[in-house]
Amino acid sequence: MLAEIITIGDELLIGQIVDTNSAWIGQQMNQVGFKVHQITSVSDNRDHILSALAEASQRVQMVLITGGLGPTKDDITKKTLAEYFGTDFVFSQEAYEDVEYLFKIRGREVTPLNRLQAEVPSNCTVLRNRVGTAPGMWFEENGVVYASMPGVPHEMKYLMENEVLPRLKSKFKTPFILHRTLLTQGIGESFLAEKIADFEDHLPPHIRLAYLPAAGSVRLRLSGWGEEAFIRSEMSRLVADLQERVKEYLYGFDEETIAGVLGDLLRKNGLTISTAESCTGGNIAHLLTSIPGSSAWYMGSTITYSYESKTELLGVPKEVIEKHGAVSEEVVTSMVNNAKKLLGTSCAVATSGIAGPGGGTPDKPVGTVWIAVSSPRQTIAKKVLLGDNRLRTIQVASETALNMLRKLLISEGL
Amino acid sequence: MLAEIITIGDELLIGQIVDTNSAWIGQQMNQVGFKVHQITSVSDNRDHILSALAEASQRVQMVLITGGLGPTKDDITKKTLAEYFGTDFVFSQEAYEDVEYLFKIRGREVTPLNRLQAEVPSNCTVLRNRVGTAPGMWFEENGVVYASMPGVPHEMKYLMENEVLPRLKSKFKTPFILHRTLLTQGIGESFLAEKIADFEDHLPPHIRLAYLPAAGSVRLRLSGWGEEAFIRSEMSRLVADLQERVKEYLYGFDEETIAGVLGDLLRKNGLTISTAESCTGGNIAHLLTSIPGSSAWYMGSTITYSYESKTELLGVPKEVIEKHGAVSEEVVTSMVNNAKKLLGTSCAVATSGIAGPGGGTPDKPVGTVWIAVSSPRQTIAKKVLLGDNRLRTIQVASETALNMLRKLLISEGL
Repeated sequence: MLAEIITIGDELLIGQIVDTNSAWIGQQMNQVGFKVHQITSVSDNRDHILSALAEASQRVQMVLITGGLGPTKDDITKKTLAEYFGTDFVFSQEAYEDVEYLFKIRGREVTPLNRLQAEVPSNCTVLRNRVGTAPGMWFEENGVVYASMPGVPHEMKYLMENEVLPRLKSKFKTPFILHRTLLTQGIGESFLAEKIADFEDHLPPHIRLAYLPAAGSVRLRLSGWGEEAFIRSEMSRLVADLQERVKEYLYGFDEETIAGVLGDLLRKNGLTISTAESCTGGNIAHLLTSIPGSSAWYMGSTITYSYESKTELLGVPKEVIEKHGAVSEEVVTSMVNNAKKLLGTSCAVATSGIAGPGGGTPDKPVGTVWIAVSSPRQTIAKKVLLGDNRLRTIQVASETALNMLRKLLISEGL
Repeated sequence: MLAEIITIGDELLIGQIVDTNSAWIGQQMNQVGFKVHQITSVSDNRDHILSALAEASQRVQMVLITGGLGPTKDDITKKTLAEYFGTDFVFSQEAYEDVEYLFKIRGREVTPLNRLQAEVPSNCTVLRNRVGTAPGMWFEENGVVYASMPGVPHEMKYLMENEVLPRLKSKFKTPFILHRTLLTQGIGESFLAEKIADFEDHLPPHIRLAYLPAAGSVRLRLSGWGEEAFIRSEMSRLVADLQERVKEYLYGFDEETIAGVLGDLLRKNGLTISTAESCTGGNIAHLLTSIPGSSAWYMGSTITYSYESKTELLGVPKEVIEKHGAVSEEVVTSMVNNAKKLLGTSCAVATSGIAGPGGGTPDKPVGTVWIAVSSPRQTIAKKVLLGDNRLRTIQVASETALNMLRKLLISEGL
């Protein structure tokens, strides 16, 4: 059973916003066994929307549409859908009640523009939106289902979870698809490919392997289609095999993150963490505090960008900075140990480096980062060279630091 | 002159990665006057790639392809392009030299898999890739240009900037397109629309307005097509008019960010900043330190998640926390003032709130955040209610805090 996603909006085509909706919808659809065949982004243009709808309906049974439902004049999706189906508009009392409810809890009056949002094509079923002012719409014609949702991510997610997915699941029989993803850090794609060439050559035909590289990590995804019990047993055998082959680099599975895996390890062992960051500028703390429940094991951080703050806030001796430079094993080791003391934590990570674009020297080029991590038993440090892309350096240094601590704790038997 | 983008990879359709390439390519193409007509994401499947290429070539003159060029077996774009054009493979000495160069500076040996990457379809012009192992490829057939690039973002960007855009600009005449975007914070889309309804009703036909909402902000984009001098003069008149209408909410233009705008204001006035973060967990520091050159005005931060760290690291009196709670005007004001002292800065921002999902009470529900900002002259605080999405609350609180300080500094004549 195939689906297509159509995302509507000039802002997607001129690149003013990144389409994060399609990836999220793709994940949700896959989890319940629907395959997304194609994603098409088109402009806020009548002809273009009409042809995208007509083409998709020739290829698949489910057309999921996002965007162009706002209250403003540039949004024409609803009007164009009515034209596509050749229908009039009717006023939907339930859609209007949702708008009223939303404005009431925000302490505001309904505007005439928002009242217009409760007008819908007469052949649609209203998908009630409790988190925004644009109702979702569900259409069925010639065996094809169309669901139209707002482009604002949290509204689209609300409608997918509460309206669209339940309806799709009850309407279509879902085949079985299983994905397992192994997450690795610290090895490049081609080296990984050579390491597991033999495994890949002997994969059965109903299981596929994909390499998904990102800043500082490579994900290995196995996908299987077929009879559920058979695929589950094949998959668990293959995952165990692959896991053994890449164990040195493996930090987790599927939707896990290095911060989340480390957080679990800390929580289970009653440990706590602080960070002392220079070049990563708070990104490690941000990754840790993005995890719900992190207040149980994350205590706090110092971010010391200036020399003075390294000394005054964190107590790194001025002489050590003067002798070795701020980007050095000695400074980063002092940072990590002082963070533990200052915040009273059992573990810590610290970074000091040159994110660039300025600040490089022949000895310490842009992208040089010293990382130190400390467990209850020991402190270790290493230097990495991460190149000249500032944001990439911040991200790779952050993930490398978290993974270093994770590996250190595991090497100590935790 | 129209272009389409085809992104290739199962990982896009199952939602394992978000397609950030298309937005970036869209921006670049627009800047030089090419219009992206459609973005299509297809799977690593021969038939699907072939039909996407054939369809796009019927609609536009430029087909930009990303993905599926890796060294591994799941990548079939190159093979499929050769089939599409009906050509053989040849060994490219210059592509091989680029692979050798890259491995040399990384201190590694070329693998047989990477040697294979230097094989290209005989009808292509190699686009030299100095930052990765997969060469780009340029094809021309029946008046349509095809450029194939790796999906890894920094490799794709390198090839677009150094090879694809220069070739497109010399091959096709570019019409004039001008976009200007006004960035607002602190007002919802429908309220903004009512505020500027009159402006929108009187827009000339060659200028369009679009609303682009994101977490905590709405961008207003004006786009004009036509004769350059005329469009520039029309646009500057309209931007000035719109700017006046939304001035209360406006923080910047085009690709600016709140952190960047605030950073410029600090730098120009010789001011410095620190942050004291609780619920935003380092995200404000991360936004500030993502700006190149931020070390000139950003000194450092404390992130105090635990009660103890608020007292011990930041000096918030224990009695104040006990009396008013950690999420209170008194605590956040103490945090911001102590951050200034501790880090010796002229300005500071502080946050304390409940990001959720746990920790809410009837008095202080999840999403309650106290924000304090301090200029050299004064400290102000306010409470905001941001709802129950943890990551959204972190982001909106961060941007609101930075914008509060920006507005305070401007109100003081800076």
